[in-house]
Amino acid sequence: MPMTHDLSREDCSRLLTAGVAGRVAIGTPTGPHIIPVNYAVDGEPGHESVLLRTTAYSLLGTYGRDAQACFEVDQFDYERKRGWSVVVRGRATFVDDHEELREIARTWQPRPWAEGQRNLVVRIPWTEVTGRQLGGGWDPWEHLPVRRTA
Amino acid sequence: MPMTHDLSREDCSRLLTAGVAGRVAIGTPTGPHIIPVNYAVDGEPGHESVLLRTTAYSLLGTYGRDAQACFEVDQFDYERKRGWSVVVRGRATFVDDHEELREIARTWQPRPWAEGQRNLVVRIPWTEVTGRQLGGGWDPWEHLPVRRTA
Repeated sequence: MPMTHDLSREDCSRLLTAGVAGRVAIGTPTGPHIIPVNYAVDGEPGHESVLLRTTAYSLLGTYGRDAQACFEVDQFDYERKRGWSVVVRGRATFVDDHEELREIARTWQPRPWAEGQRNLVVRIPWTEVTGRQLGGGWDPWEHLPVRRTA
Repeated sequence: MPMTHDLSREDCSRLLTAGVAGRVAIGTPTGPHIIPVNYAVDGEPGHESVLLRTTAYSLLGTYGRDAQACFEVDQFDYERKRGWSVVVRGRATFVDDHEELREIARTWQPRPWAEGQRNLVVRIPWTEVTGRQLGGGWDPWEHLPVRRTA
């Protein structure tokens, strides 16, 4: 049975920065929801945050402002029973500043995969970053399905 | 930009039943957590639930009893920018009945990938099942990374 071990913050950061799709969890009056999302990573080392795009009438738009949120990325190799996951937790805020929104629009590539206007930008700071690797003797970085190239 | 559409409950059921790994979200006093998990599907059509194994001292063991939980599986094709996700929501319970635990131990294969004793079985009923597909003209079923064979 494979062993698990914690990933360093550096490894977590590398994996988070390389990814393009993850899941965010948000609390609602009827319990937590998990929402698959495209994302980008923003900010200097040590002060990073996850950026998500959504709409004002979505679950995230309705319950995400100034709320504790959890964001997760992972990858599992089903045949070899190995994988990794990284979780970010922090207080989500909505980006309201026009200058900041312009800068995000300029630098965040690629666009969300799904159609529709997603004008609301949600920021989740990396207040808590944890990661785990399942199975030893391999480097998660070498087996990423895609890497952000920007 | 790819279109999204809702998956039928039948499609959701098919995808949930085929999978082996997903993520559960649970509320805690410091906000929601997302936890990657192995899982199984249990129960007759229309009365299914997701079964998870955990430990008494885990987040799920601490905050999951009789709590609203959210469970998610997904698959994304990064190159083609298409994918699907299925979300189950319901009130999690701990399976305490010895007969039921024996039956679950007998039928649930494969075992969790990670090492360690996971004696606590958590059941999340499919009270709410929703699914979305991103990108048309393809069948998620034909592109599963693995299918449960049991």
